[in-house]
Amino acid sequence: MAREVVIGIDIGGTYTKYGFVESKGDCFLDGSVNTNEYPDVHSFLKDLFISINKSIESSDTELKIMGIGVGAPIGNYYSGTIEDASNLNWKGIIPLVDLIKQYYDIPVVLSNDANAAALGEMMFGGAKNMKDFIVITLGTGLGSGIVVNGNVAYGHDGYAGELGHIVAVDDGRLCGCGKRGCLETYASATGIRRTVFELLAEYTDDSDLRKITFEDLTAKMITEAAKKGDKIALQAFEITGKILGRNLANAVAFSSPEAIFLFGGLAAAGDFIFSPTKEHMEKNLLKIFQNKVKLLPSGLQDKNAAVLGAAGLIWKELLHL
Amino acid sequence: MAREVVIGIDIGGTYTKYGFVESKGDCFLDGSVNTNEYPDVHSFLKDLFISINKSIESSDTELKIMGIGVGAPIGNYYSGTIEDASNLNWKGIIPLVDLIKQYYDIPVVLSNDANAAALGEMMFGGAKNMKDFIVITLGTGLGSGIVVNGNVAYGHDGYAGELGHIVAVDDGRLCGCGKRGCLETYASATGIRRTVFELLAEYTDDSDLRKITFEDLTAKMITEAAKKGDKIALQAFEITGKILGRNLANAVAFSSPEAIFLFGGLAAAGDFIFSPTKEHMEKNLLKIFQNKVKLLPSGLQDKNAAVLGAAGLIWKELLHL
Repeated sequence: MAREVVIGIDIGGTYTKYGFVESKGDCFLDGSVNTNEYPDVHSFLKDLFISINKSIESSDTELKIMGIGVGAPIGNYYSGTIEDASNLNWKGIIPLVDLIKQYYDIPVVLSNDANAAALGEMMFGGAKNMKDFIVITLGTGLGSGIVVNGNVAYGHDGYAGELGHIVAVDDGRLCGCGKRGCLETYASATGIRRTVFELLAEYTDDSDLRKITFEDLTAKMITEAAKKGDKIALQAFEITGKILGRNLANAVAFSSPEAIFLFGGLAAAGDFIFSPTKEHMEKNLLKIFQNKVKLLPSGLQDKNAAVLGAAGLIWKELLHL
Repeated sequence: MAREVVIGIDIGGTYTKYGFVESKGDCFLDGSVNTNEYPDVHSFLKDLFISINKSIESSDTELKIMGIGVGAPIGNYYSGTIEDASNLNWKGIIPLVDLIKQYYDIPVVLSNDANAAALGEMMFGGAKNMKDFIVITLGTGLGSGIVVNGNVAYGHDGYAGELGHIVAVDDGRLCGCGKRGCLETYASATGIRRTVFELLAEYTDDSDLRKITFEDLTAKMITEAAKKGDKIALQAFEITGKILGRNLANAVAFSSPEAIFLFGGLAAAGDFIFSPTKEHMEKNLLKIFQNKVKLLPSGLQDKNAAVLGAAGLIWKELLHL
């Protein structure tokens, strides 16, 4: 009997990853192509599906492809388009779902990467029995997938869940979006890097981080420094957690989630980021919310999370969940 | 043939209002009792239902009571309880739905007043064809009812939608909840009163408002002063709109609503509050949200809105909408 699978595709600025995923979350035959090598979306999709078809041909068992789920920056669930994604080469409005259906005329669902992460968490990760939760992705930026009553909140236009761009600090840091003080300019892998450089300028403490350029500095290096007791690194996590925590408290006042999952590069710092975030979230919560909201690492942290999330998008539709 | 109606009950700190409401929103036989005359909930409900039963007996046509919807401070949709509502006399956990079912053993639904307002707007007001919108009630405090995918967001515990208590100003004004800087300490009838007094202290402009005590001052008086060109009053609206607007921008980033409805005493100030709120909301929106979100007065402003909202709560369930 053919093995029923979906194709999960995660389109990132650098790599596009894909995998074949069963309804219980088993992922296999994964592969990738380099997104940024393709100046136009048509040649990209052509090579992506050549690669996918090779994977299918290499399979031991027959595969029945039930649908395709795609996570992509600014991916719009309703329109099936990607519109002016700042970290992709393809400009204007890309009708991605329609273009993919020219390769496989089966159900195709698109959403942004954070919404896909939320679906992955709900279908295969730590939110299996939850109906109200939030996934925060702390990568280059801050993404958010908000689940309300068991469904991702897409909003009336498909763009809900842009918590990276709520104003966290009045007249604060300049953001890539053109505004100032957006949450992601503080709470993200890039944000903590900016905080480290602010602290290196302000204080005189010795720090290994003084040997690293802004371009080279990563969240992982800051975590390593913190493990060695580096004061600048520890202070940077404290500041990041303070700003993230009080904004998560605002998110709780909004949708009262059972849990908030932290996901991505910066979340891998573990207690260094979880502990101050939890402390400042609790400090800013209304009494009725205190000591109730779980702050958790993603249940997919060590798995092919982005691909599982994209697969979750389409499995949820196919299974009518 | 009997007329099919529900009873909508709005429990406020001072008055409790009720009315009989048909599925299309016709409201009749309304009445009220004084909430604050009753130190315990049992004697309150006894007199409330005596009053309700008199109304039923006075009806020309036979009424078929299909259900009861109740809006009340901290009313919890899931548990059917009111828990330590600060502006009610009844302390502890009140199992209101169970208590009401002792009078009428029919479907009874409870929620907080802002969620009821949102249901009223969706069933009978300006949000009839909307699936994603927010209602902000600007009264003594700031309440919010958030509708996502056509349903009120109750959150995992029934307490979602507490936008009055998101932190609007760091280390700002003391709030009744014990925190500092909550949105409702600025954006509410009480909040603008505090702003007026701050401005009266800071500036030297002549103002009719200098003749009024803090206790006597109302949002209506501030509106009247603004109409006469009073600088303090105009500035107070500008400040209120600025803080409200940028926090509404954050709410848009969260759930991307089609519209935000402003409701209640302060909303009656019209352009004085709508204009600066709209301006500062737009200023703080991500590009993808700009010039899309409607900022509207409630479609129920001149009607028995609170009772219609409470009735909407139960009609939505009865009609399986």
